[in-house]
Amino acid sequence: MVKAAVLKKPMTEVEIEEFPYPVMEEGSVTLRTIFSEVCGTDVHLMHGRLAEVPYPIIPGHINVGTIEKIAGTVRDMEGRAYQEGEIVTFFDVHETCNECWYCLVAKATTRCPNRKVYGITYSSDSGLLGGWSEVIYLKPGVKIVSLGEDITPEMFIGGGCGLVTSFHAVERSGIKLDDTVVIQGTGPVGLCAVTWSRLAGANKIIAVGAPKLRLDMALKMGADEVIDIEKLDPDDRLSRILDLTSGRGPDVTIECSGNPDAVPEGMQITRDGGTYLIVGQYTNAGDVSFNPHLDINKKHLTILGCWGFDFSHINKAINMLKRHKDNFPWEQLISKKYSLESINAALKAVEKHEVIKAVVEPNKK
Amino acid sequence: MVKAAVLKKPMTEVEIEEFPYPVMEEGSVTLRTIFSEVCGTDVHLMHGRLAEVPYPIIPGHINVGTIEKIAGTVRDMEGRAYQEGEIVTFFDVHETCNECWYCLVAKATTRCPNRKVYGITYSSDSGLLGGWSEVIYLKPGVKIVSLGEDITPEMFIGGGCGLVTSFHAVERSGIKLDDTVVIQGTGPVGLCAVTWSRLAGANKIIAVGAPKLRLDMALKMGADEVIDIEKLDPDDRLSRILDLTSGRGPDVTIECSGNPDAVPEGMQITRDGGTYLIVGQYTNAGDVSFNPHLDINKKHLTILGCWGFDFSHINKAINMLKRHKDNFPWEQLISKKYSLESINAALKAVEKHEVIKAVVEPNKK
Amino acid sequence: MVKAAVLKKPMTEVEIEEFPYPVMEEGSVTLRTIFSEVCGTDVHLMHGRLAEVPYPIIPGHINVGTIEKIAGTVRDMEGRAYQEGEIVTFFDVHETCNECWYCLVAKATTRCPNRKVYGITYSSDSGLLGGWSEVIYLKPGVKIVSLGEDITPEMFIGGGCGLVTSFHAVERSGIKLDDTVVIQGTGPVGLCAVTWSRLAGANKIIAVGAPKLRLDMALKMGADEVIDIEKLDPDDRLSRILDLTSGRGPDVTIECSGNPDAVPEGMQITRDGGTYLIVGQYTNAGDVSFNPHLDINKKHLTILGCWGFDFSHINKAINMLKRHKDNFPWEQLISKKYSLESINAALKAVEKHEVIKAVVEPNKK
Amino acid sequence: MVKAAVLKKPMTEVEIEEFPYPVMEEGSVTLRTIFSEVCGTDVHLMHGRLAEVPYPIIPGHINVGTIEKIAGTVRDMEGRAYQEGEIVTFFDVHETCNECWYCLVAKATTRCPNRKVYGITYSSDSGLLGGWSEVIYLKPGVKIVSLGEDITPEMFIGGGCGLVTSFHAVERSGIKLDDTVVIQGTGPVGLCAVTWSRLAGANKIIAVGAPKLRLDMALKMGADEVIDIEKLDPDDRLSRILDLTSGRGPDVTIECSGNPDAVPEGMQITRDGGTYLIVGQYTNAGDVSFNPHLDINKKHLTILGCWGFDFSHINKAINMLKRHKDNFPWEQLISKKYSLESINAALKAVEKHEVIKAVVEPNKK
Repeated sequence: MVKAAVLKKPMTEVEIEEFPYPVMEEGSVTLRTIFSEVCGTDVHLMHGRLAEVPYPIIPGHINVGTIEKIAGTVRDMEGRAYQEGEIVTFFDVHETCNECWYCLVAKATTRCPNRKVYGITYSSDSGLLGGWSEVIYLKPGVKIVSLGEDITPEMFIGGGCGLVTSFHAVERSGIKLDDTVVIQGTGPVGLCAVTWSRLAGANKIIAVGAPKLRLDMALKMGADEVIDIEKLDPDDRLSRILDLTSGRGPDVTIECSGNPDAVPEGMQITRDGGTYLIVGQYTNAGDVSFNPHLDINKKHLTILGCWGFDFSHINKAINMLKRHKDNFPWEQLISKKYSLESINAALKAVEKHEVIKAVVEPNKK
Repeated sequence: MVKAAVLKKPMTEVEIEEFPYPVMEEGSVTLRTIFSEVCGTDVHLMHGRLAEVPYPIIPGHINVGTIEKIAGTVRDMEGRAYQEGEIVTFFDVHETCNECWYCLVAKATTRCPNRKVYGITYSSDSGLLGGWSEVIYLKPGVKIVSLGEDITPEMFIGGGCGLVTSFHAVERSGIKLDDTVVIQGTGPVGLCAVTWSRLAGANKIIAVGAPKLRLDMALKMGADEVIDIEKLDPDDRLSRILDLTSGRGPDVTIECSGNPDAVPEGMQITRDGGTYLIVGQYTNAGDVSFNPHLDINKKHLTILGCWGFDFSHINKAINMLKRHKDNFPWEQLISKKYSLESINAALKAVEKHEVIKAVVEPNKK
Repeated sequence: MVKAAVLKKPMTEVEIEEFPYPVMEEGSVTLRTIFSEVCGTDVHLMHGRLAEVPYPIIPGHINVGTIEKIAGTVRDMEGRAYQEGEIVTFFDVHETCNECWYCLVAKATTRCPNRKVYGITYSSDSGLLGGWSEVIYLKPGVKIVSLGEDITPEMFIGGGCGLVTSFHAVERSGIKLDDTVVIQGTGPVGLCAVTWSRLAGANKIIAVGAPKLRLDMALKMGADEVIDIEKLDPDDRLSRILDLTSGRGPDVTIECSGNPDAVPEGMQITRDGGTYLIVGQYTNAGDVSFNPHLDINKKHLTILGCWGFDFSHINKAINMLKRHKDNFPWEQLISKKYSLESINAALKAVEKHEVIKAVVEPNKK
Repeated sequence: MVKAAVLKKPMTEVEIEEFPYPVMEEGSVTLRTIFSEVCGTDVHLMHGRLAEVPYPIIPGHINVGTIEKIAGTVRDMEGRAYQEGEIVTFFDVHETCNECWYCLVAKATTRCPNRKVYGITYSSDSGLLGGWSEVIYLKPGVKIVSLGEDITPEMFIGGGCGLVTSFHAVERSGIKLDDTVVIQGTGPVGLCAVTWSRLAGANKIIAVGAPKLRLDMALKMGADEVIDIEKLDPDDRLSRILDLTSGRGPDVTIECSGNPDAVPEGMQITRDGGTYLIVGQYTNAGDVSFNPHLDINKKHLTILGCWGFDFSHINKAINMLKRHKDNFPWEQLISKKYSLESINAALKAVEKHEVIKAVVEPNKK
């Protein structure tokens, strides 16, 4: 039997249940979970803020595990067969259909209506399809990526989905050599966005967030300057940023905060003709007011919404993590590790922003 | 002596004054004005809604005239010398400095802080630097464009600054072959945006505006469908647009309305992963509320502010006007021609949206 | 029994053979062929110039037919079920794998090594997988596009694969409003490239080719000027093009000729900082010499190779064909229709450039 | 009096001559030269390989000096007045006209036909307008950039024009996070291209060149792998590169070699759908043969010529040099410093590739 944490419905505590070991289809794989992240999205799942979630579910969409069983032969993109015992992660989103208008014509696979997401869109009635479980069942076709021997599971799960989400965001932002960049928000998405911006060629990088623990981490992840939102109000933040950017504002601002108020502030911060990328508004936290003339039209601004990521981003993010494993303290993004039994405490810690990244270790006794 | 219409300060009537004929510097040109447009910006000037305007001014930023005198030799881009008697227009914005960070590094000349604009940023104390005048003085270096013999002054002034502003907007929007396009607003900017979208390869084009006079004109300018905002409320407009676009919304939406409420509506209309270009918010008409999660982030939207135009746009717009002079009723955008003496009536007609485009003929008796 | 034309090996005549009616898998469709094109690629197949072709084959990669049987329910992108009797085409390239590095990371599906192409990569031992056949078997997953009632089979097959290949080329070339364009080559690819360039916003379009029949057709398809390569040598062609383009050359040149010598000529023709797209070099016709300093580096040229097309291109090309069905003489690209029995004559006519487009009608008696 | 080195005509030795101190126009500046580079272009000038050079000339287009005199007030982009004693460089190309079609419409200022270049397009009859001189006269309007106190003159002149040329090349190449990059050529352009590629987000970087001295330098400048062209022939180089790139070739190849044979090799090396940027072919070194089908069309390749640089590139390159001054051994690119009197020996050393970068110190006794 396999133990897994089940969220039966919104606003309830997660409970541990036992499931039979998966019956494996040809081409499927089982993972013995090493880490599964507890992220802001899981708090939203608990609050019932996401649409069309088929509760009860086993949460946990970003995971690292050891391959336990392989039904037949499963190969990577290059044709190499996966082996039992390999440490891997996998792309939580699968079954982008390659049949619909979004996949085929718009080539916008993150908007494919047929996407399925581990830990979010599967009911626990369908099996072990979430990471808060001792064992995860990878259906045939799920894209697996080997972590190899260069990086530890901690290095990858430290950023977790923030690592890959922010990779997509920075890629889409089009940061160029010598760009000045402001990052709004210092959670895992924002902290990783600092690093990807640095690696993408930014010159000065300014991180705006709180509390001090996270701002210190931002400096370690590559920021040149930090601004504490608990100490400076919006007007003073704008002044400070203008002082740091020759009076013009940054070339690129990346929103990773989740706070709607950050959005008009980001428009105002960014220089005329600059780029503002919005990636942090993953759940509906309400409306906000702005001025279309001053904040967009007259500024000749480019604003980019950025949703999810595709397989190329997870692949590239891990390649770059391997390349720069010694250059940034990736694993220090993990604030605390939890057992499966203490998962409700983990959720609370995430909700209260007491941790940067919390992870659960379902097989740790 | 030269008669010109002067706006002495906001909220007053425009008055006719007499000025001496310009003393000409080497490289300058004088135009005998044929048409000067009366546009929404002039209404805003009258209301004092633009910042840092050095009243008294002679309004009129887009003009067509006959070259009357040339001080020395003045050449076009290709090296041809202009001749007295030629019918020309000129680029109202000049003295983009080619010295500042926006000109040299950002290559965003429409945001150059040193720009000067005929009819807006010059006091009438500095001379005949606006179009509501029998004669316009073109300082050395002002970029002149010949209309040639293929097109009439009416064809160009019909769209006027809307012709070129919308050209920039459609170019920046990146419309591609087979894109579905919604145009919000059916003033001169919106109507010309319909045509440029058609010429840029759009398939279905839907114009949203009012009243019927303008919607009929939209159909003549290339729209396939029109939606009357006086007959359908926002929800019904969205339903109608979804019906016309396979349930997804258009690939590209271009805002040309000037109404802040159009902006969140435009975000909602546009398909996931599509592009929303905002060009109509030329003056500060107040704030508006939107939902960053639903309207931008989850939609993976690209939003582009578009400010002004540069010389390339006026050059290309006129080239294309010459090419397609017989394909669209450009000159029908002129609703009414006014004498210099009836300029206050023209301003009122523009303010009340009674006309699509009003023009003044300073030399018409 | 079904009659089909089989090319048993290179440098032999095509022979008519009989095959049993397909045994249909769930999700498959059979077409009663209306038209199949005979294109330059088929001449190359006959000469054995393509690598790894599994002779014997049934050629014919672009086809129009009537749905005869459907095994189960087969739906289009929008979820509508196809019906027997519908007139459709289909995407000859299928099984882009959505599993390999090119599909997933590079997002360059036209370079997916696992692609299969009707009429080229299938042996006739595998069934009716080419268009020179009374019936074509569409495997499950083959992408079907309905022609609808607005356009005739002739309108689509007139351009055939050239229609879609050139659509991809023009889309990739990034032609913008008012660009001057030169098209090298006046076969079906070049002639359709003229039209797509016109629809994409080009101003002056110059077609370079021969003989007069095709140049006349270029004018009908939207060219402003034609240059006969049988009358002007390369130096005179360059002079003529410079005369037509203010001495600078075109903004965009699109190579559709298949002649290696056209390539350095195209580099030289294109203006400094312009774009040169190469789509016509579909088979290896040998090497050619050029000067990297003068022809590329000093010109600051952008050169784009363009291979094949994906489903988005066939979908969009047909949408635009429907929109502009009355604006260009699409069906006049068909020079001659052949019966299945006279297919060898069709091949010869294509090889000798006696026709613009030859099509075969397998069910015509 | 001021001593300067004059090249009277091609194929002669450079001679030292004396000139009067410049008579200064309002807005001009004189520099006391610290370093002027001796680059491959100077060898070409000596051989008479550049067109329309007004011999006699004072060579030396990239220079660092101390501001000696300022006629009036000269300000930087941000409005700060330059001071005597500041250590600066300047943009050798000036008088891009902001009047011609290339400047205004194509926005391709590096192809402006009115450009003037210090050390190349000025006769010594016109004054001290080249860097191989104790004093350089900066005409009014020449763009000056302060090196500030963070970097030494050696750090900038080490890369010299290669530093900025390669910056433009890497910017134009569009390198993205995790791209694999091959650099062909290990002169100053190639070595700096390695560093800019690293800073722009490349993952694996492979430098191809010779001799060992330069390959060792490539490793210090950020390359992961080097390939010695004196040890491996083209076939073996291709094999080695495929081995290092999962059998596909790099995403981006940048040609910095100046050898025409490198160009078809670069096309072949680059992966299908990849980008090949050609920046090294600055002088006409003859023709070369390639296969348009195999090398461009079938590969779906993007090939980018890259000519010169504009002010944005020198500005950004120096900003990034300041940011990363401690991360790469910029100043080690200088192999040898020469006095003005030994300038002919410097030219010979550059011609024979005995040095990476040679610089002249006109004021060093």
